[in-house]
Amino acid sequence: MAQGTDSADGRSEVDVLIVGAGPAGLMMANWMSRCGIRSRIVDKRGTKIFNGQADGLQCRTLEIFDSFDFGHRAWIESNHMLEICLWNPDPKTGVIHRSDRIPDTIPNISRFQQVVLHQGRIERFFLDSISENSKRTLKDVPGWEGGIQVEHGVIPTLLEFDDKQAEDNDAYPISVKLRHLTEEESRPKQSATSLNGSGLQDGLFRSNLAQDDTEEMLEKSKALEAKAGKEETVHAKYLLGADGAHSWVRNQLGFKLQGESTDYIWGVLDIVPITDFPDIRMRCAIHSESSGSVMVIPRENKLVRLYIQLTTTENVEGGKKADRSKINPESILASAQRIMSPYKITYRYCDWWTAYQIGQRVGNNFSLKERIFLAGDAVHTHSPKAGQGMNVSMQDAFNLGWKVASVVKGTSTRSILKTYQSERRKIAQDLIDFDHRFSRLFSGRPAKDVLDEEGISMDEFKSAFQKGNLFASGVAVDYGASVIVAKAGDSTEQGDGTEVLGEEKLRVISEQELAKEIKVGMRMPSFKVLNQADARPWHFQELLKSNGTWRVVVFAGNIKSASQKTRLDALGEKLSSPTSFLNRFTPPQKRYDSVIELLAVHSAPRQDVTIFDFPAVFHPWDDTDGWDYWKIFVDDVSYHEGYGDAYKNYGVERETGCAVILRPDQYVAWVGEVDDYESMDKFFSGFMVEQARKGRAMNGGKEGAQLKNNGNGAKLSVTDEAVVGTAAA
Amino acid sequence: MAQGTDSADGRSEVDVLIVGAGPAGLMMANWMSRCGIRSRIVDKRGTKIFNGQADGLQCRTLEIFDSFDFGHRAWIESNHMLEICLWNPDPKTGVIHRSDRIPDTIPNISRFQQVVLHQGRIERFFLDSISENSKRTLKDVPGWEGGIQVEHGVIPTLLEFDDKQAEDNDAYPISVKLRHLTEEESRPKQSATSLNGSGLQDGLFRSNLAQDDTEEMLEKSKALEAKAGKEETVHAKYLLGADGAHSWVRNQLGFKLQGESTDYIWGVLDIVPITDFPDIRMRCAIHSESSGSVMVIPRENKLVRLYIQLTTTENVEGGKKADRSKINPESILASAQRIMSPYKITYRYCDWWTAYQIGQRVGNNFSLKERIFLAGDAVHTHSPKAGQGMNVSMQDAFNLGWKVASVVKGTSTRSILKTYQSERRKIAQDLIDFDHRFSRLFSGRPAKDVLDEEGISMDEFKSAFQKGNLFASGVAVDYGASVIVAKAGDSTEQGDGTEVLGEEKLRVISEQELAKEIKVGMRMPSFKVLNQADARPWHFQELLKSNGTWRVVVFAGNIKSASQKTRLDALGEKLSSPTSFLNRFTPPQKRYDSVIELLAVHSAPRQDVTIFDFPAVFHPWDDTDGWDYWKIFVDDVSYHEGYGDAYKNYGVERETGCAVILRPDQYVAWVGEVDDYESMDKFFSGFMVEQARKGRAMNGGKEGAQLKNNGNGAKLSVTDEAVVGTAAA
Repeated sequence: MAQGTDSADGRSEVDVLIVGAGPAGLMMANWMSRCGIRSRIVDKRGTKIFNGQADGLQCRTLEIFDSFDFGHRAWIESNHMLEICLWNPDPKTGVIHRSDRIPDTIPNISRFQQVVLHQGRIERFFLDSISENSKRTLKDVPGWEGGIQVEHGVIPTLLEFDDKQAEDNDAYPISVKLRHLTEEESRPKQSATSLNGSGLQDGLFRSNLAQDDTEEMLEKSKALEAKAGKEETVHAKYLLGADGAHSWVRNQLGFKLQGESTDYIWGVLDIVPITDFPDIRMRCAIHSESSGSVMVIPRENKLVRLYIQLTTTENVEGGKKADRSKINPESILASAQRIMSPYKITYRYCDWWTAYQIGQRVGNNFSLKERIFLAGDAVHTHSPKAGQGMNVSMQDAFNLGWKVASVVKGTSTRSILKTYQSERRKIAQDLIDFDHRFSRLFSGRPAKDVLDEEGISMDEFKSAFQKGNLFASGVAVDYGASVIVAKAGDSTEQGDGTEVLGEEKLRVISEQELAKEIKVGMRMPSFKVLNQADARPWHFQELLKSNGTWRVVVFAGNIKSASQKTRLDALGEKLSSPTSFLNRFTPPQKRYDSVIELLAVHSAPRQDVTIFDFPAVFHPWDDTDGWDYWKIFVDDVSYHEGYGDAYKNYGVERETGCAVILRPDQYVAWVGEVDDYESMDKFFSGFMVEQARKGRAMNGGKEGAQLKNNGNGAKLSVTDEAVVGTAAA
Repeated sequence: MAQGTDSADGRSEVDVLIVGAGPAGLMMANWMSRCGIRSRIVDKRGTKIFNGQADGLQCRTLEIFDSFDFGHRAWIESNHMLEICLWNPDPKTGVIHRSDRIPDTIPNISRFQQVVLHQGRIERFFLDSISENSKRTLKDVPGWEGGIQVEHGVIPTLLEFDDKQAEDNDAYPISVKLRHLTEEESRPKQSATSLNGSGLQDGLFRSNLAQDDTEEMLEKSKALEAKAGKEETVHAKYLLGADGAHSWVRNQLGFKLQGESTDYIWGVLDIVPITDFPDIRMRCAIHSESSGSVMVIPRENKLVRLYIQLTTTENVEGGKKADRSKINPESILASAQRIMSPYKITYRYCDWWTAYQIGQRVGNNFSLKERIFLAGDAVHTHSPKAGQGMNVSMQDAFNLGWKVASVVKGTSTRSILKTYQSERRKIAQDLIDFDHRFSRLFSGRPAKDVLDEEGISMDEFKSAFQKGNLFASGVAVDYGASVIVAKAGDSTEQGDGTEVLGEEKLRVISEQELAKEIKVGMRMPSFKVLNQADARPWHFQELLKSNGTWRVVVFAGNIKSASQKTRLDALGEKLSSPTSFLNRFTPPQKRYDSVIELLAVHSAPRQDVTIFDFPAVFHPWDDTDGWDYWKIFVDDVSYHEGYGDAYKNYGVERETGCAVILRPDQYVAWVGEVDDYESMDKFFSGFMVEQARKGRAMNGGKEGAQLKNNGNGAKLSVTDEAVVGTAAA
């Protein structure tokens, strides 16, 4: 039985319904599983693993995976790409030669580098994470005791939206009729297994050369209605359409993809190469003199992906679909052999192949009334060569998930939801521009000399590649001013045109100069700091797990200085007040760090300080756990992992410090003075919801002061247990 | 049904039978699962996870875990200990104060540092690894298709050994009768769950204060014979007794533990501490003025382990067992409170507790005729405070496993098996000496001043702690000369007294000065090198996976120098010969790197070299996979991970290099000139078994030279598959 289904009348309620279990849908479900939101995720296909598919992982994507605790799985299993080799015709002989080497990931922009891994493995990490976390967070929620599981072979057939209920936070304005397919229906028609069982897969069914199979499956579904599985209607607060380039959800809403088609047709081969080409394990961009281009992407398990320009179709006019009967691994390989000549290349093992001809298009709307959202391929399509598609799709949902979760949980107002379109549609447009430029340079014939104006200058190509690399890393994303990004300027100009500022009287502007390298609107960079209590080094990002929590990071400066200590104590007093933003916005029954977590990084010598030098609110008290040892960090030298030099690298003044507010997705929301409590309070007041109070106060001094060895209250239960343990012996 | 059991007559054959599924037994089974050896592992207990137990992991142990691909799991889940704080009485006031800080792991001795993790998790990593790998390696072996699974609730009742068959490699000289217990029988009597279900466990049943429960369980087993499970007799080639301090296997053999008992009694509490002691998340050694000592070991999940000297029993004479009725968490805590005063400490949550009084003892024999072996607590017992027990136990089996596997597989002669006792009994003796010194210093009263000769000097304590830290890291192990360690000197003096040299005419002595920091007899240190083909940085140890393979590492030097290239080509030619040791000792049907893997690390600039600058034997050819890109490395600067400077750190001359032979357990067997093929051949000839030849030659130039784009043979099957893939659409 599906999660949350009420079997009596075939009707069910759900906070979030996700259509599509590709990377974007899985990322959304992953957030929901972390935040304990009653969600369902359905996918029309019966199988979940495909060979091939997108597989480049940006360093930003790895940072995100790490925030969900499975970054190391991708890092270990993937192939790491370190260097890009540019191969061009030798000006004298016309024979291809290596003209340049550039690092694949720009050094020092992230603690990860770009890697490549089969999409099926990535989906597996998500599935494991969703299952494990939702079982924990939803274990007491009726209907969700078993957690969130992807429901395969389920297709939406009807969408209804009650406009009048859109702004009622408790309403379920969305109704979706779901049909459960039979196993046969849900199997993609084109998938096939080779005679020898090695599972060679033809990827055409998921490229745009294949017809959209949604309508077809719907037809089949109708025809087989009598014997097919059951139908149900789901009432949802929120709906995400993450159902791909042919999005059924988008079509129901009448939203459009806007942009251009191209006349570039490319083939893709995933093979174990047999070759004498010396750079086959490097990422390579190979421009031949007149046979077209190849991009080499070395992969895991000895595989190499080749993107191969199919010059046999160069006469196809823009927008026209290719004749797929003429495209097969043999013809694609033949093109690669021409381009890579005089080097030899062939294979005995082919894992997957496809061909594509794709335009750059962006959705005109990413949301209906901030109740129904679209993400991933449903709102942007482009060429796969830059390895961006899966990353940007997952990052769409990474941007959206925590926002929806905090509104559903009642800690944030709906005002933050508009920022999804503002932030992500802007990124999609940037991506499409990037892809357009990149594709043109990559598919063009190399210029013979400086007078050859129709050819592509290889210097220009190299320069574009280098600039593109920063964009392609994902760390250059810079969100505009909004109710959750406290920076100056016009929010409509900085985003996609949507107005996303909150009330003017609550608007806060950051003092960016206090932390020159912690840029408001961009993701928090990472340098190593040490835990004050145990001296363990942590990359700062490792402290920023994706659990839906905002963070106030107090760069406390030199707390051994009397004046700085005074500022810190004053801040501590305000934060500890029953009316502080920490207390107003945290539900009384929740843990002290469940909505906003307070972290400190100081710059005094570690060995001269203990956590007791900080106000108690920085190391909160719990009756069972005692003091919290995991909130205070120091910028000092480690024994085994060098010196992160975090203050310097963050551009923060070492004596006086600063304060930073980070969003739950690690993006910087505000920078200000270390003791500027008022701005912090004003910022959070712009979108957070005051919680009913029960005389709650941030724990701190009082309980701690009562700590005694003869605290019978604390010890009694333990003694009882011990007696039980011994008595049974 | 158990693996390998023949149900018809209750009789079964197995290559290796392991009794005991603690860390030593699991490590042995883990090796067997990697090497594809038909094995069974039985344990008398029905449950496999206990709270508490040994939990310190040396950096060497983490290196070993990493060689089995689960080092990261321990690293992520564990608590990392960075600093040791020494607390002593202030000379003036007598009040405890922090007198010193020292790093917990000596910097730069390993890429890991000492960590702490619950033994149950470590057993879980082993179980997962054993299951996953044995299903792969044994999938075609009748009776083992499902891999190796630990069989719980199985007790050995009779052991027979046929002396005459000891040296017949194909014989099964060992017979063990196994009884399958009922579930009730196999549950430890003393285990209990507290009233509130939080699972407080009393550890006494596994400390030596509890009576040995083997005999008791055997009695119960006999009494319940009628209704108990079945009995079977297993015929084994090899048997490992890893069945703990009260080893049934050891008792059957009549072997003894030799050594002394002590009068020090210690309590252990695993608690979430509620305290104002500022270093509770550091490892601390606290000597109070006159109330005894505490060691603080911070653990995962907010837990802290306290080892607490129980001064209430200080009048107990040496060797006398404590009155366990007087030891409980309450009395242990009270002792801690006295010692740590004026700081307060209590708890609400206790995970586990125990008490122990233990002597230092070593087994007189580790093996019967190199057919039956003992490992772990079965041959050495000591105090747990130094965190050595589980590590040394696992390392016993890590030393033994590959040796037994290679003899069973017929690639090595039985001559190497004697080195187990020689190498590991020596280590056990060192451990006991270390523990004896350390325990005395730790349990003694601090000296009041320099004239107080009965007290312990805190300077001496600190010095011992620092020296002990190198020993405790596990990386200081230095195995003596033997048939598999080519160094000068008397093998009996360098080991435990066992004679372990092979034939004198085949003895080889290393030229240690060619690689000053690659010490023969010690484990290979690790520095970063780059893969030549894809520029990826690897810690050298990451290349040395525990799969049973020997490695010849050729530090090829500057291969751009003509003279060095000549030496390398000459070596390549000898290695490629059909009569080379690579070919003589590798079974013809096995992969080229299955017995001895050839690796190269050169020192020429990476960008000036390709793998094709090396003789083909260094990047062997495979008809399906093409060239092998994972054998040649370079000592050069990486883009993102700095410069390993491997030649310098290994003490190898950059121009002329050297060659090194590494055992399957990463210990250095031989160091010599880069082209000293003759010594390599002589070394391997000392213990390896020549395989039947089928005209096999190391693959290399011939097939590669035939590589053509129109290689129809290679492509035909692919085309066929692709047609199938498309035809199904």
